[in-house]
Amino acid sequence: MLIEERKNKVQNLAAQFIPIIGEAYVILDEDSLNHYAHDETENLHFLPDVVLKPRTAEEISAIMQICNAHKIPVTPRGGGTGLSGGALPHLGGVVLSFERMNSIINIDERNLQVITEPGVITEVLQNAVKEKGLFYPPDPSSKGSCFIGGNIAENSGGPKAVKYGVVKDYVLNLQIVLPTGEIIWTGANVLKNSTGYNLTQLIVGSEGTLGIVTKIVLKLLPYPKHDLLMLVPFASLERAGEAVSAIFRAGFIPSALELVEIDALKIVKKFVESTAVPVSDDIEAHLIIEVDGNHPETLLTEMEAIAVLLSEYDCGEVFFADDVHQKAELWKLRRRVAEAVKLDGYTIEEDTVVPRAELPALIRGVKRLGAEYNFKAVCYGHAGDGNLHIRIKKPGSIYSLNNSEVIPALKALFQLVKSLGGTISGEHGIGLIQKEYMGIIFDNTSLMLMKEIKRVFDPNNILNSGKIFNS
Amino acid sequence: MLIEERKNKVQNLAAQFIPIIGEAYVILDEDSLNHYAHDETENLHFLPDVVLKPRTAEEISAIMQICNAHKIPVTPRGGGTGLSGGALPHLGGVVLSFERMNSIINIDERNLQVITEPGVITEVLQNAVKEKGLFYPPDPSSKGSCFIGGNIAENSGGPKAVKYGVVKDYVLNLQIVLPTGEIIWTGANVLKNSTGYNLTQLIVGSEGTLGIVTKIVLKLLPYPKHDLLMLVPFASLERAGEAVSAIFRAGFIPSALELVEIDALKIVKKFVESTAVPVSDDIEAHLIIEVDGNHPETLLTEMEAIAVLLSEYDCGEVFFADDVHQKAELWKLRRRVAEAVKLDGYTIEEDTVVPRAELPALIRGVKRLGAEYNFKAVCYGHAGDGNLHIRIKKPGSIYSLNNSEVIPALKALFQLVKSLGGTISGEHGIGLIQKEYMGIIFDNTSLMLMKEIKRVFDPNNILNSGKIFNS
Repeated sequence: MLIEERKNKVQNLAAQFIPIIGEAYVILDEDSLNHYAHDETENLHFLPDVVLKPRTAEEISAIMQICNAHKIPVTPRGGGTGLSGGALPHLGGVVLSFERMNSIINIDERNLQVITEPGVITEVLQNAVKEKGLFYPPDPSSKGSCFIGGNIAENSGGPKAVKYGVVKDYVLNLQIVLPTGEIIWTGANVLKNSTGYNLTQLIVGSEGTLGIVTKIVLKLLPYPKHDLLMLVPFASLERAGEAVSAIFRAGFIPSALELVEIDALKIVKKFVESTAVPVSDDIEAHLIIEVDGNHPETLLTEMEAIAVLLSEYDCGEVFFADDVHQKAELWKLRRRVAEAVKLDGYTIEEDTVVPRAELPALIRGVKRLGAEYNFKAVCYGHAGDGNLHIRIKKPGSIYSLNNSEVIPALKALFQLVKSLGGTISGEHGIGLIQKEYMGIIFDNTSLMLMKEIKRVFDPNNILNSGKIFNS
Repeated sequence: MLIEERKNKVQNLAAQFIPIIGEAYVILDEDSLNHYAHDETENLHFLPDVVLKPRTAEEISAIMQICNAHKIPVTPRGGGTGLSGGALPHLGGVVLSFERMNSIINIDERNLQVITEPGVITEVLQNAVKEKGLFYPPDPSSKGSCFIGGNIAENSGGPKAVKYGVVKDYVLNLQIVLPTGEIIWTGANVLKNSTGYNLTQLIVGSEGTLGIVTKIVLKLLPYPKHDLLMLVPFASLERAGEAVSAIFRAGFIPSALELVEIDALKIVKKFVESTAVPVSDDIEAHLIIEVDGNHPETLLTEMEAIAVLLSEYDCGEVFFADDVHQKAELWKLRRRVAEAVKLDGYTIEEDTVVPRAELPALIRGVKRLGAEYNFKAVCYGHAGDGNLHIRIKKPGSIYSLNNSEVIPALKALFQLVKSLGGTISGEHGIGLIQKEYMGIIFDNTSLMLMKEIKRVFDPNNILNSGKIFNS
């Protein structure tokens, strides 16, 4: 279909959407559409033909039946904070926005579960369950604006994943609308399930390409009563990486174990006022380490033991965050790294993940590739999981999807990651911007299986197609 | 194909299997075949035409290419301890036995991972990693004889699941042979992965119907240094169920939380010598509660706090297991319940799972249905997960797949489970014996999706077909 032809077709269909969701929620004016043309991914802009804001699964079902019959591309969109272009309507057509599906349906304190709609902001959900003494751990940096539905789509992580796991570890059951309009539940509201294929886990991380998530049942934990936080400087980035692996080998499981390279910290300190964090010429990186639990004296014992262990890895003076303010300041610095380095020109963000003991090899490799391909890189991220975010600045080069200067460098990086037993995305997803590299990780047979699974769910290939792979 | 025709065809093909794996590993004599005709499921017996014992993924690939070309049914088989008939060759044909693929390939202490072949006995694997201070938590009752590959197929659980999760929570990456013979890896050796569809989780729990698992990468944890165990009698089975939910609501996460109804305990005490466990007329059930961690004084505090909490639920005198011998005795009693009640005539085992606070409602319902449908039932299992094993004895009735006396009772039970937000299998799988009830849990659309996924992986429908659903 030509672009103009499709656009006319969609706009003619708008009349059919109005009786389903109401005129106010069928958005056609270009100013409003522009808001849905981008996310937090670098330099991408794709205008949808129409944005629809449904309220219920049944409305989405009716919309999908129309779109499926007319083969109109549909792109589901959460908070618009994605880093892989997964929610961008690169084929035009319909954007389905979940901003009105923002109710927490039930916090079940008896069963430690919550049932929620997908348009709830992650932090809102976390705070609501915390008020009942409950804990939903996955906390991406964008938690103040991302939607829980988007977190399901990307299988998000965040700092707590090292102890508590990622989104997939909390999703018990999903209501989804299929591209063909049927509404199904993928599982049951239970902690253990060996009843048929795990459709729930197939949907988590499928980036909105298989079904549209309309209700979510999440497992919760009791909220841990105490935590301790420390910041540890290292003279050597590599030694910091080695220390990460040593902490787990010694039997500790911190509730967060983050690494920030000194260049990233210098940049973020331009934007966030902080006196606590030392920046000096003999520091290459910091580890941020948190432990949590119900017994403060035990936590103190653990933290001290970890500090002793780290001294074997040539760390500098350990800074213990003394109170909630110091903790908040440290976390603020950490959370704003991505935004700050982006503003500083490091526009290309990669989301590599390797077995955690391979972090030093990955970091060494990044520096070597930088010299070879003429880019600057800063590294930071969830070191405890082996999930290293690498932000790249390439002098004289602006990011685009088919930038022939950047692609060879990324290919070399991803081949390195693969050779270390890792993969190209730990928590951001493949979306639009990494799909060209899927062949580095998966052979043709695996990719073909994925494409055929896509076809099972979406025979007309209308739902977020061209994401993850070219379907 | 008629049975005789298929049998002749398979036996003629035996000549083709010999050059692949060697004559000693192509089993055709009926005495030997008989061993592979049953598992631990009640009263089922299906003779395969041939049993093959390959050593490598490449050999399995060659075997599958032949079987696929000739449309010969293939049934993968682990330790033969299954409780849903998943490894039974009900269509005859080839049984693939993994008994020779029993090497632990690498225990990676740097990354807390293990790479293993599927034919390793679960307990052997656990002990091997424990020697390095590492912990693989999933521990089905059959751990002394089941294979880790079978655990992957069924997504097994066991007592530790309540704190540590089930098999799916430990599987990072799988090498599988497809029914059509291709060998692929499903993921990467990493803790977080948002790279394409989660083929790994699609294979876990798929009961050997989608691919043949040939290598397994598992996540490990540091081994917890200490544990405490207690046994708590309750005058009321329902109150015991209520207490289970209360423990988590109060913020505790035990490393095991098992329930055993007094009738089950009376039966197992016929088989296992024990002085520790009280059996009296004013007890309806016991909870077995374990906490683990690295700090003994913290564990003691927790255990005492749990005991205080339980006193609000009318528990009797708490028995603390004082040493390793008492702990071993308690666990032995618990692990042998299934076997003992089976010997006592409770031949039909169900594996229901509900949200944990619904346990009292489930237990009440089981008793009511017993009166209505004239069966006796004993309940026991992983109460912390809401996973209740229900063993049924129906006077004058022997179990068979199409027993018209049993089916209506099971249908009523599963409808109850569904109405409580639960499902029909928590850890045993659907296999052959529960597939008729899948329609209670899933609607036609969901079942159709599963069948079409099966077709993507297995276009000729040769791999363990007729398990989970009629494909």
